[in-house]
Amino acid sequence: MRQAGRSLPEYRAIRGEGSILDAIQVPDLSTEITLQPVRRYGVDAAILYSDIVVPAFAVGFGVDVKPGTGPVVDRPFRSRADLARLRPLEPEIDTPYVLETVRGVVDELGNTPLIGFAGAPFTVASYLIEGGPSRTYTCTKALMHGDPDLWRDLMDRLAAMAVASLRSQIEAGASAIQLFDSWAGALSPPDYERFVLPASRAVFEGVADLGVPRIHFGVGTGELLPLMRDAGADVVGVDWRVPLDEARRRVGPEHALQGNLDPAVLGAPWPVVADQVRDVLQRNGGDPGHVFNLGHGVLPGTDPDVLARVVELVHEGP
Amino acid sequence: MRQAGRSLPEYRAIRGEGSILDAIQVPDLSTEITLQPVRRYGVDAAILYSDIVVPAFAVGFGVDVKPGTGPVVDRPFRSRADLARLRPLEPEIDTPYVLETVRGVVDELGNTPLIGFAGAPFTVASYLIEGGPSRTYTCTKALMHGDPDLWRDLMDRLAAMAVASLRSQIEAGASAIQLFDSWAGALSPPDYERFVLPASRAVFEGVADLGVPRIHFGVGTGELLPLMRDAGADVVGVDWRVPLDEARRRVGPEHALQGNLDPAVLGAPWPVVADQVRDVLQRNGGDPGHVFNLGHGVLPGTDPDVLARVVELVHEGP
Repeated sequence: MRQAGRSLPEYRAIRGEGSILDAIQVPDLSTEITLQPVRRYGVDAAILYSDIVVPAFAVGFGVDVKPGTGPVVDRPFRSRADLARLRPLEPEIDTPYVLETVRGVVDELGNTPLIGFAGAPFTVASYLIEGGPSRTYTCTKALMHGDPDLWRDLMDRLAAMAVASLRSQIEAGASAIQLFDSWAGALSPPDYERFVLPASRAVFEGVADLGVPRIHFGVGTGELLPLMRDAGADVVGVDWRVPLDEARRRVGPEHALQGNLDPAVLGAPWPVVADQVRDVLQRNGGDPGHVFNLGHGVLPGTDPDVLARVVELVHEGP
Repeated sequence: MRQAGRSLPEYRAIRGEGSILDAIQVPDLSTEITLQPVRRYGVDAAILYSDIVVPAFAVGFGVDVKPGTGPVVDRPFRSRADLARLRPLEPEIDTPYVLETVRGVVDELGNTPLIGFAGAPFTVASYLIEGGPSRTYTCTKALMHGDPDLWRDLMDRLAAMAVASLRSQIEAGASAIQLFDSWAGALSPPDYERFVLPASRAVFEGVADLGVPRIHFGVGTGELLPLMRDAGADVVGVDWRVPLDEARRRVGPEHALQGNLDPAVLGAPWPVVADQVRDVLQRNGGDPGHVFNLGHGVLPGTDPDVLARVVELVHEGP
């Protein structure tokens, strides 16, 4: 469960107040934060504590993550000259702390796998171009449609950075990877196919030889599921808007699915939560190609005891 | 096109800085604002200048619309006692300015129809419960799942207010109505069907005897389209995430569709805009049951000249 930590008292006790980018640069802290949800919930995998803008930050693009807001950029990406601010990522030199965290986590996890973490080119680009979170992606879409050559060059560069980061995480011990394209659902299928799919495919192809499972995450992507599969994922994430059996129909039997409980449902009384968990499991119908998960990150106010009961219920089966 | 005014210089010249709720209470101003896009663009219908929280505001719930933010509530809806703050709406007494505006607009419009305006129970409830805009609808979903009886009573009350408001607008001269359930797309289909559809159906049924076309608007509702049709709409809105031919497949041949150009595409160079307009028209394939429109409101920075060319292109046909 992505962002499972932030609802934990043990997380708040050690996290401090500053930017997540500060916390990520302290391997002992990041290692502990990555392990906390595994210890607390007994989930079947850990997801690296990270942020999608880490590579852009590490090459000096000028991005921070403001608590309560999200990624913010001093000088948003506007023109070809800004490409120079996105030099290739050299993970051992630029993000040694990430690799130290991966090694530390893997040492502690034993047989539990660690999932490596990268932001997908579209979603990272949206922050660099908008300068912060957006509901409309006006500037991003204007650049995409208005200067397709520059858009392609930007996507290529962000794809190469994601590949470099993911390869280094796998080489340091990650057993799987997840590519976060959280806001791809803002696009129509034709725009996604033309402007985004090639770059995400380059990321998945760029790690294919390393032979680890590759998960493709997004929200509001009901219409994009077949395209996100075609980008080269082994596992396609599904939020709660598409019932899991319908998602299976769209993605086909050859790929795994991840999801798809509504995180907001965790605020309901337990019988409601349990019903919704069982509904997901029943719609999956025992297909082994399903990673039970929330459809998006854990909401900050979520009661850890409810999450613990969800994990227990899923492990019991429907 | 909803919110077509806010990108117009003639709108900014007369609108002033305050809350839209102040502007709505001045019929001469609201009439003029409603007419501006019709004059400028020659569109085939006007949509009443209004806001989804007008009825709740008018009965004294304590809600304002903050420029740049949206609806904000002093004391959010939390418990059964708050129902008392939502007494029935008496349009002639509580919102005489709305009816004066409708009459004034209809007088000026001649043969061009005016579409009446109401917020759907779910989307209005989300503002009253969250106290402002939300990305996650945590409190709304917690109430819905945690106290279904109170939820139903709240939805019934908001449905009755929407019915009263829409009936009064039709009686004052509106030729069609649109029910705005902008954020229904945050729900899974089973939750929508159980907790929202009955109230929206009550709204559509509550105006059925008046015999005007009824439009059902939402965003991110790809999975909900058949349910939004079943709520009793004659026209189902489709944002840009679902290609129009796929939306037609989901809604069936007996209902009209409205949409579905991405408003953010209007920031692209004209040939891109024209291609996307033609794509919508071609996917519609000449079906008379299509109201060409944007998939959501006009974005504030949109160039009015681009909108004018879109209208012209649509009137020419594909």
